[in-house]
Amino acid sequence: MNGPLRIALAQMNAVVGDIAGNEHEIAAGIALAHQAGAQLVVFPELALTGYPPEDLLLKEHFLADARAALERLAADTTAIVAIVGYPERAEDVHNAAAILADGAIQAVYRKQHLPNYGVFDELRYFQPGERGATIAIDGVTVGLTICEDIWQPGPPLSDEALSGARVIVNLSASPYAAGKGAAREQMLQQRARDELVAVAFCGLVGGQDELVFDGYSLVVDHEGTVIARAPQFEETLLIADVDPVTVGSARLRDTRRRAPAAQAHDSVDRLGAFTVRGDGDAPRPDSATPPIAPHLDIVEEVYGALVLGTRDYARKNGFQHVVLGLSGGIDSTLVSLIAVDALGPDCVTCVTMPSPYSSTGTRSDAERLAENLGVKLLTIPIAPTMEAFDAALADIFAGREADLTEENLQARIRGNLVMALSNKFGWLVLATGNKSELSVGYATLYGDMAGGFAVLKDVFKGWVYRLVRWRNAQSDRELVPASVIERPPSAELRADQRDDESLPPYEVLDAILSAYVEQDLDAADLVALGHPAEEVERVIGMVDRAEYKRRQQPPGIKITSRAFGRDRRVPITNRYGG
Amino acid sequence: MNGPLRIALAQMNAVVGDIAGNEHEIAAGIALAHQAGAQLVVFPELALTGYPPEDLLLKEHFLADARAALERLAADTTAIVAIVGYPERAEDVHNAAAILADGAIQAVYRKQHLPNYGVFDELRYFQPGERGATIAIDGVTVGLTICEDIWQPGPPLSDEALSGARVIVNLSASPYAAGKGAAREQMLQQRARDELVAVAFCGLVGGQDELVFDGYSLVVDHEGTVIARAPQFEETLLIADVDPVTVGSARLRDTRRRAPAAQAHDSVDRLGAFTVRGDGDAPRPDSATPPIAPHLDIVEEVYGALVLGTRDYARKNGFQHVVLGLSGGIDSTLVSLIAVDALGPDCVTCVTMPSPYSSTGTRSDAERLAENLGVKLLTIPIAPTMEAFDAALADIFAGREADLTEENLQARIRGNLVMALSNKFGWLVLATGNKSELSVGYATLYGDMAGGFAVLKDVFKGWVYRLVRWRNAQSDRELVPASVIERPPSAELRADQRDDESLPPYEVLDAILSAYVEQDLDAADLVALGHPAEEVERVIGMVDRAEYKRRQQPPGIKITSRAFGRDRRVPITNRYGG
Repeated sequence: MNGPLRIALAQMNAVVGDIAGNEHEIAAGIALAHQAGAQLVVFPELALTGYPPEDLLLKEHFLADARAALERLAADTTAIVAIVGYPERAEDVHNAAAILADGAIQAVYRKQHLPNYGVFDELRYFQPGERGATIAIDGVTVGLTICEDIWQPGPPLSDEALSGARVIVNLSASPYAAGKGAAREQMLQQRARDELVAVAFCGLVGGQDELVFDGYSLVVDHEGTVIARAPQFEETLLIADVDPVTVGSARLRDTRRRAPAAQAHDSVDRLGAFTVRGDGDAPRPDSATPPIAPHLDIVEEVYGALVLGTRDYARKNGFQHVVLGLSGGIDSTLVSLIAVDALGPDCVTCVTMPSPYSSTGTRSDAERLAENLGVKLLTIPIAPTMEAFDAALADIFAGREADLTEENLQARIRGNLVMALSNKFGWLVLATGNKSELSVGYATLYGDMAGGFAVLKDVFKGWVYRLVRWRNAQSDRELVPASVIERPPSAELRADQRDDESLPPYEVLDAILSAYVEQDLDAADLVALGHPAEEVERVIGMVDRAEYKRRQQPPGIKITSRAFGRDRRVPITNRYGG
Repeated sequence: MNGPLRIALAQMNAVVGDIAGNEHEIAAGIALAHQAGAQLVVFPELALTGYPPEDLLLKEHFLADARAALERLAADTTAIVAIVGYPERAEDVHNAAAILADGAIQAVYRKQHLPNYGVFDELRYFQPGERGATIAIDGVTVGLTICEDIWQPGPPLSDEALSGARVIVNLSASPYAAGKGAAREQMLQQRARDELVAVAFCGLVGGQDELVFDGYSLVVDHEGTVIARAPQFEETLLIADVDPVTVGSARLRDTRRRAPAAQAHDSVDRLGAFTVRGDGDAPRPDSATPPIAPHLDIVEEVYGALVLGTRDYARKNGFQHVVLGLSGGIDSTLVSLIAVDALGPDCVTCVTMPSPYSSTGTRSDAERLAENLGVKLLTIPIAPTMEAFDAALADIFAGREADLTEENLQARIRGNLVMALSNKFGWLVLATGNKSELSVGYATLYGDMAGGFAVLKDVFKGWVYRLVRWRNAQSDRELVPASVIERPPSAELRADQRDDESLPPYEVLDAILSAYVEQDLDAADLVALGHPAEEVERVIGMVDRAEYKRRQQPPGIKITSRAFGRDRRVPITNRYGG
């Protein structure tokens, strides 16, 4: 009975609110896992509703619909144990994992550590569970945890391991940030070593509004060795055999565990023992060597997150086609690359909207880029519309110099034009501003900020260059003309404008922004890090004053440890400087 | 020593982040209260930082600055006890009330019930306190609570009363919703009766982004009788004498309290005994009869909230002047009334932007209204700019019918024009859309939705009419031409357009929206309430699909129990219908 336990981790792309669709995917995952001879199949956190469902969790009928779907899934679950994340409506609501076996919902585990920081609001919705839980499958004890439960050392993980679990499963929906996958893997390895237990981590994959879930499901043995790793950013069913015998013998040798094990025993519920492979069973398929997907380089990883986030925002919201303003600058170049990789060149239209201030260099670069990418490029000159606005405002503005007003009008005419294309043809508008600009408010509300999705919302300018260079190097032919990368950045809203005359050089700007926004350092800290006091004060002031603009920007993909928006919640009305 | 306790409640308008400014206001309040002979002066929840400071609370230097200000205030506090709300940085962070007396911070009470629902995120920031607390002032025992602490029956309020408090003070920052003040008063009366204790409630007043705090400070005796009530929406220092002797004798008669009193004793910290009025003191000023401000009619109350919210958003963000598009319709009429009452006619500019579809009726109404209000009216016809856009898009749109695209372009040209006025003159743009329209997406992103502040964001159309009628009736001369109120609503974006041809009549629409948005009812519930199934499905679908628009709208004042935005957090990517 104590042979290897074959576990399938269903790294699925659940859609928030699509209970019927998710149910269908889960049923397919159970069937596939069973065909592959798995005794246990695990789905991600809240797989049945998608994550995060936010205030849908305050609707009784939503919770009832999820329950009904779970019951249908349970009825079809035989000869395998399935663990499915769903919101449990009991006396209160719990972030829960249902154990489906023998045609019924056998038991439920409730998440204990509810994150309520950063992008998370779980204490708004859920009552925490109070006890660890294990189940036994063909004699192998399996401990249950949900996402944050395993990020915190100690119970429930430690109690479950001490009271007999040979493998801990984790149902997760872990939002992506650059490098987080590697950090997560290291954490899981350490948990395995600390508790002498194998760990099977099942990650959600897919884009959901501003979040990307990167998947990266893992099986780690009790020595911390990765024995299976799913690729990032793709749906897959990861299957691996876990050997409970070597876990048991390692524990026998580790006598430090005996006293705490006796104490832990009472803190854990035994939710049931299931027999999947009886004596009369057909021989199960041979175990294939589980895949160990390679780690991605960090630039490739970020690029992958942006592609998946863009594809899923478009597709899950019913858009077949996207449109973006292509200026010939580096930002719109990167967005066009991502859009083509996300949706294919036939589903991307670019539009260039030259003004009298547009240089021939940027215009010809935009044309060449569009040609290289194989996307359609529309051209709409804006000078006549600029003149119409100038005429409309001439009396009211009489005697005043041209200033930012006229620059913003150009950007807003372009915003109107891409929105008109969106309205007429049903295309999703991709906004192209980067995080450095949006941080300091160097962007026009309803102008270049207009759109349905802001692909680079959380991407600093330095990263824009890194990503374009990396993507360009992947191609065996020219994608991006060299002049796009080499030309000094300019908004081209007046003659001879250069961004670095209004702003510090991007390397300096990005460093200040990262320290201020992500680490909450104050001006004195930043000066102590070697930044000039005057620049620090100016940048911080610009960030604080631009909050009102960011509040109206489209959603975009979080890739840093602290994105603007739900992740960094600051008041608009705020007299605190820094 | 057991004479009446004179309590001053400083109903102040704290500004978020303005620690120096709030410190100055608090110092002034302490001085005034002392002059009036008060022994105790109470300030609202987080008065020193403003409420809610959101992620400013994650900055060490912000917390340190608040502490430094508190220490300065304490040093100057003598011959009176002051209770000041501030964020306490201890091993963790607490929503706290500092007791300042005899020139020092004497003790701190920590809020126990931390709201994390609706607009609140307090579990993101604070560790709850664990024990009730009392202080004694000239022999009178006073119990301490902060906001939510008193909304929940039981401890700490009950423990404090049982263990001797004759009066409970509450430091509050309670966001306004229509009718909430009356409900709050009733709750406080019941707490007083239940626990045989006087209650002194000190409410924050002022606008902060989407929230309005309505003040409405109260003193209630132990029988639930209101003995002092501050007006809503105004700063004031409310002073009343509370008689501890009658509280004590009432308790002596109520023998039910004896057993629980013995138990409660150990759950409450005695934070100190202070002597304010020694034998040698100068006679204190006579107590004036405390004011009992009348309850406002609900329409007047909502109007007051909108005026205060608009004034404070403008002023606290440094705007002297606002601009809005005046169409001659009912929504922009109401916004112009509110703007004039908030800032005065000299600080309001209206702009009418007629198109070929604008009727002479609405145009002349706009002119008459502006004249009646004494505000400047600019006129900018948009037909030439419409033609410029049409020409720019003619090739690309060739062979396609005019549709919503062209309607949206008109709205966006107007949006650009008001934004150009804002850029050129530094005016704040007030958007004029109402909640009914914004719920169903009957509004143009970057068009009529453009602006810095959306005054009617949470005001249903039916309420727009009620508010205009009410405000009109307050004036002894014509403010709003009758035709504005009587004309069927129309966006006037094409010939003979009428809103009620695209939407259900507003009475029906508002009823469905209120039930769906505020009460989370589903389609079946709504049909059971008597609404036609087809209309219910259509409206719910429109609400769900318009989430992406609302995410980009300007902030606006919450007046219902559930405003869009922080109060109702739903995903954009969401396949759950209803």
